[in-house]
Amino acid sequence: MLLDSILKPRAVAVVGASTRPHTIGSDLLKRLIEFGFKGGIYPVNPKGGEIEGLEAYKTIADLPDDVDLAVIVVNASRVLEAVDQCHAKGIKGLVVISAGFKETGAEGAKLELELLERVRAHGMRMVGPNCLGVVNTNPEISLDACFAESLPVAGDIGFVSQSGALGGGILNILKDLNLGFAQFVSIGNQADVNAETALEYWENDPEVKQILLYMESIPDPVNFRRLASRISKKKPVLALKAGRSAAGASAASSHTGSLAGGDRAADALLKQSGVIRELSLRELFSSAKVFANCPIPKGDRVAIVTNSGGPGIMATDAVCGHGMQMAQISDETKAKLREFLPAAASVKNPVDMIASAPLEHYRRTVETVLADPAVDMVMVIYLPFLGLKDIDVAQALMEIRAAHPEKPIVGVFMTTSEFFSKLSEMQVTVPFYMYSEEAADAMKRLNDQRLWMARPEGEFPELPEDTNRVMQIFRTAANEGRHELTTRESLDVLDAAGVRICRSGMAHSEDEAAAVAEKTGYPVVMKMTSKTTSHKTDVGGVRVGIASEEDLRREYRDLIGKLEAKGLLEGLEGVLIQEMVKSKRELVTGIATDPQFGPMVMFGLGGVFVEVLKDVAFRLAPLTDIDAKDLIHSVKCVKLLEGARGFTPAQMDKVEETLLRISQLAHVHRFVKELDINPLMISDKDGEPIAVDARIAFDPEAVKLAL
Amino acid sequence: MLLDSILKPRAVAVVGASTRPHTIGSDLLKRLIEFGFKGGIYPVNPKGGEIEGLEAYKTIADLPDDVDLAVIVVNASRVLEAVDQCHAKGIKGLVVISAGFKETGAEGAKLELELLERVRAHGMRMVGPNCLGVVNTNPEISLDACFAESLPVAGDIGFVSQSGALGGGILNILKDLNLGFAQFVSIGNQADVNAETALEYWENDPEVKQILLYMESIPDPVNFRRLASRISKKKPVLALKAGRSAAGASAASSHTGSLAGGDRAADALLKQSGVIRELSLRELFSSAKVFANCPIPKGDRVAIVTNSGGPGIMATDAVCGHGMQMAQISDETKAKLREFLPAAASVKNPVDMIASAPLEHYRRTVETVLADPAVDMVMVIYLPFLGLKDIDVAQALMEIRAAHPEKPIVGVFMTTSEFFSKLSEMQVTVPFYMYSEEAADAMKRLNDQRLWMARPEGEFPELPEDTNRVMQIFRTAANEGRHELTTRESLDVLDAAGVRICRSGMAHSEDEAAAVAEKTGYPVVMKMTSKTTSHKTDVGGVRVGIASEEDLRREYRDLIGKLEAKGLLEGLEGVLIQEMVKSKRELVTGIATDPQFGPMVMFGLGGVFVEVLKDVAFRLAPLTDIDAKDLIHSVKCVKLLEGARGFTPAQMDKVEETLLRISQLAHVHRFVKELDINPLMISDKDGEPIAVDARIAFDPEAVKLAL
Repeated sequence: MLLDSILKPRAVAVVGASTRPHTIGSDLLKRLIEFGFKGGIYPVNPKGGEIEGLEAYKTIADLPDDVDLAVIVVNASRVLEAVDQCHAKGIKGLVVISAGFKETGAEGAKLELELLERVRAHGMRMVGPNCLGVVNTNPEISLDACFAESLPVAGDIGFVSQSGALGGGILNILKDLNLGFAQFVSIGNQADVNAETALEYWENDPEVKQILLYMESIPDPVNFRRLASRISKKKPVLALKAGRSAAGASAASSHTGSLAGGDRAADALLKQSGVIRELSLRELFSSAKVFANCPIPKGDRVAIVTNSGGPGIMATDAVCGHGMQMAQISDETKAKLREFLPAAASVKNPVDMIASAPLEHYRRTVETVLADPAVDMVMVIYLPFLGLKDIDVAQALMEIRAAHPEKPIVGVFMTTSEFFSKLSEMQVTVPFYMYSEEAADAMKRLNDQRLWMARPEGEFPELPEDTNRVMQIFRTAANEGRHELTTRESLDVLDAAGVRICRSGMAHSEDEAAAVAEKTGYPVVMKMTSKTTSHKTDVGGVRVGIASEEDLRREYRDLIGKLEAKGLLEGLEGVLIQEMVKSKRELVTGIATDPQFGPMVMFGLGGVFVEVLKDVAFRLAPLTDIDAKDLIHSVKCVKLLEGARGFTPAQMDKVEETLLRISQLAHVHRFVKELDINPLMISDKDGEPIAVDARIAFDPEAVKLAL
Repeated sequence: MLLDSILKPRAVAVVGASTRPHTIGSDLLKRLIEFGFKGGIYPVNPKGGEIEGLEAYKTIADLPDDVDLAVIVVNASRVLEAVDQCHAKGIKGLVVISAGFKETGAEGAKLELELLERVRAHGMRMVGPNCLGVVNTNPEISLDACFAESLPVAGDIGFVSQSGALGGGILNILKDLNLGFAQFVSIGNQADVNAETALEYWENDPEVKQILLYMESIPDPVNFRRLASRISKKKPVLALKAGRSAAGASAASSHTGSLAGGDRAADALLKQSGVIRELSLRELFSSAKVFANCPIPKGDRVAIVTNSGGPGIMATDAVCGHGMQMAQISDETKAKLREFLPAAASVKNPVDMIASAPLEHYRRTVETVLADPAVDMVMVIYLPFLGLKDIDVAQALMEIRAAHPEKPIVGVFMTTSEFFSKLSEMQVTVPFYMYSEEAADAMKRLNDQRLWMARPEGEFPELPEDTNRVMQIFRTAANEGRHELTTRESLDVLDAAGVRICRSGMAHSEDEAAAVAEKTGYPVVMKMTSKTTSHKTDVGGVRVGIASEEDLRREYRDLIGKLEAKGLLEGLEGVLIQEMVKSKRELVTGIATDPQFGPMVMFGLGGVFVEVLKDVAFRLAPLTDIDAKDLIHSVKCVKLLEGARGFTPAQMDKVEETLLRISQLAHVHRFVKELDINPLMISDKDGEPIAVDARIAFDPEAVKLAL
């Protein structure tokens, strides 16, 4: 299935095996033998003879019939030929170590494309090119087809690395940290097999209990989201995505666009996929350690057991800083602790057994605290004290862990690195950290995974829109050679998409304006709407709080006069007369399009503060209903919606609906490039969200292509 | 001087020395001997005889005359007597290891106070009680009067620890990390010697090049700030202050008060003192390592040299994430690099020498990049590659460092812990980290210290205030048994303090209101001002945008009618008629009083957003002019002041002056407990900051005591 021919082959051929020392063709073969691959290992070399004690085959055609995987290390120019020969021989799996493809420029990219076409046509699967290889530590397979420095240690991690060199470095460190892995795939240029292939392959593999990804790019975000959001519900998926500062933000004309820079899109994708994003290798390993040795907790209530006050305080700081709770230990538990702890000990959380606590106190205290139903996780802190050995305390914790496998236990051992060296030679079943902050970070990861697994799946609701009307507006504008809609058109599109817009009417003369205002009811707002001038406010094209017809007529004449003086009458479509929504709460929502990840929905605080306070968040379209809720709750200003400061609570279902509707609009009509609803006002009266101003930019060529 | 008798004694007496193994009286004596103290070591034990091969003195009176320091380990009940005898013998320095004082409750606290009085009366200095001891690693002294687990390593750190057990743990880890220290003081209950004593003692000690503090409390913040802000200009001071989550926030009635929780005050104190605050032990050590091995850079331009792309990207992310700059390497430098690096290498920053880079490439690349005047610091990344040993690259870097001592070089070695074990046995002169994020964190510390050292000292400007008027307002209110001023009184106090308040007048009738409004000029704002009702808005006591006399009279009647209906007329002082300041920028400033740290000044975004967005910052009063500037620039909304979004730039000097004036008000009149200016409006017209509403709470008893 999928990658079986590559990760569970019956026999492996090394195409380009070599007798020359310190070449990949030599090292890789040695490694395969050294790690004890359980199937046949067949070197291929035109010279034949013997390599590393094995008979070398002169051609691929000469190979025995049980070869599932060919590891190819020949020069790039000879890879295609080798692939054809492998196909002829019935080989289904390829690992192309050879470099000289896309990474070298246009020529190489062409060669890579040819290679991929060949692989696809032959119905083969390929890891690479330009990669480090693959590993499977299952003892019945013992495949190490990889030229990393150290021999792998078996464990339950599935690890995908995009960077070859870094992948090797990470393998070294994993070994050093005593973190074993089940399978490793260095995807290199990821021409065929990529992170998603591995995710899917490991989805139901009981040997892989957590998945680690090192990524520099995510070529197919849609597929990644589809797979990762499903698989992360079954096992933790941790990702280190490099390239955060590479702010590929193109010049954007909207608020949403200008705030969408950096790696907002990648961040949104990983969040919506339930992938735990790590920002450094240290954190990646720290998290992997906790997932390798702890169950997912039932809640976020942490108890701390310590033999020193200071670290207990620091641990409390870190736990609370992560928004987890300090467990309220029951009176019963306290009484039990009092039975054996000395008077100077504190039986409140953090439980301070004092410096002289013997092993027996550690044992009984941890067991007693662990048994308290108000405790979901326990952090145990040890500071060296004369007569009590770190390793003995660690052993005791592992015994307790074995007896109580249902709750996470995390150890903080502020001792020397010698202790950690000792651990790396043991079969460890509890995650041990040097510092309490690291332990708290790790517990936060457990809690994040718990929350994600408990989060409802969410649905993509289908919301009716007047598609004909939407298309007609865009077609008209596209035919006029524009790439932005006017204010009126933008509001009309939103209206057609089912978004509540403020009541407005168009006027082309002073009298028309007065008539519309009469119908709307004073006070009103007057706004120019133009095919050429989108920055209305900058040219004095917006007048608010017009209280009477007299004022209206004066403002109308003034507005037209100013525009005329500035030579801006030409593109003028008319003047919008709008109801004046009574609201002190101005929000913003909109769409920005990431060149690679597609449309994203933004939501947050609007008005003059948008770009100053940046209290906004993003999610990739399409949003599920749960994504919409989540997006709303990920900005600080949500408190204004919930009714802080005496405000009428916002109609949250309608706010969510607004986000879902623009998400759908952008997802369905991919020619929509940028959209701003600023402000989206929350009515003081009844909390209804109302779009008061809008701006839409689009790709006219894409409109013409749309049906 | 100060602590010479304790840290540089000619001879040491151990009062309570013991032959019984595993007692402090035995361990401590052994340690003194083992570490090779250069002066006399005299055990004191009533039984006399020989202890650890030394003649024991039966009484303190019997001791030779060269004893400067007595280390006291006898039972708490016998400490006072011992101190008296030491005094009689002419001993000036005391380290009281014995526990049983303040930490045990009221009885112990009384004993500690007696002890302190005795020490003061005798003109002695004392470390402790309830401490771990002191260390001085200077080879001419070699004093280890401390019962930590491991023998100290010499270095240039001065280290003060409040927690005994944690201090010991830290000493272990420092040793493990090969971070030596010059002197160590475990201050325990800090009855006499505290962190400030040590800071002052180390100020001009060339052996102490950086100071590390572990603190759980800061008993004398004023003195701490005075000393630390001076000393941190000479050498880095790093602090780990535990107890962050202990949100000792009492119920506060003002915005400023409610936002002042947690450890805002400690944070402000450390910032204003130039102390680099570390939030975890890992970071504390990481920073100590960089300061121990690097000069302070001249700027923040970082160059990265690597043999692998991925870590280079991650390092760039981390450097940019800290707001430092990626150095723009000159064309000249690039050309020089091209001379020897292979074609596949990248000579832009990050400089990627590719995986196969030999030692010679490391050497030449680092030297070339280091020589570029556009480079202030260099991060060198090494990933294991066949044939190139980590330790050889490290050696090369140390040689380069010796030849170019003026620019920081930081190493990132993504290799095994074996490498770091090897380092700990070497004389290391370059800081080496496992991960690039740690190296970037460390470089940020260097840059923070550079910025602090370049920061002007600042002055406490004396600003004239009408003190008589201020006092009269508070006295009147205090005499009426109130602890809050009315709105009018609050604004009057600000006016007397020289803060620009909006023009307003008091009215006690409809006609008076009309007359005041006529003078003020429409539109006006109408506000109740009451001795009993401070939440004006909640009871409909604020009316804005009153445009005409007709409206004014109607609103006045309505206001009075509503108050009457609610039974709120009694405390009513009158109705304020205020000019309506035209402003879209509502800021907030104010005073909150921390029970321990005293008054703090807050500044940030005001209006309805204060508590939702929390875009505010704090500094301890009194502010220097530089503190005021710094406070203003530490909130996001400063951009609104600088003229973002087409606003008239605020008059920054006047905003600063406003902060300085309320700082002075609170600093001089300590009975002011809370003060809110919300909003502090920035005039649309000319950018002037104007206090539009205010609220002041005070301690009436303290007013009565004030002259």
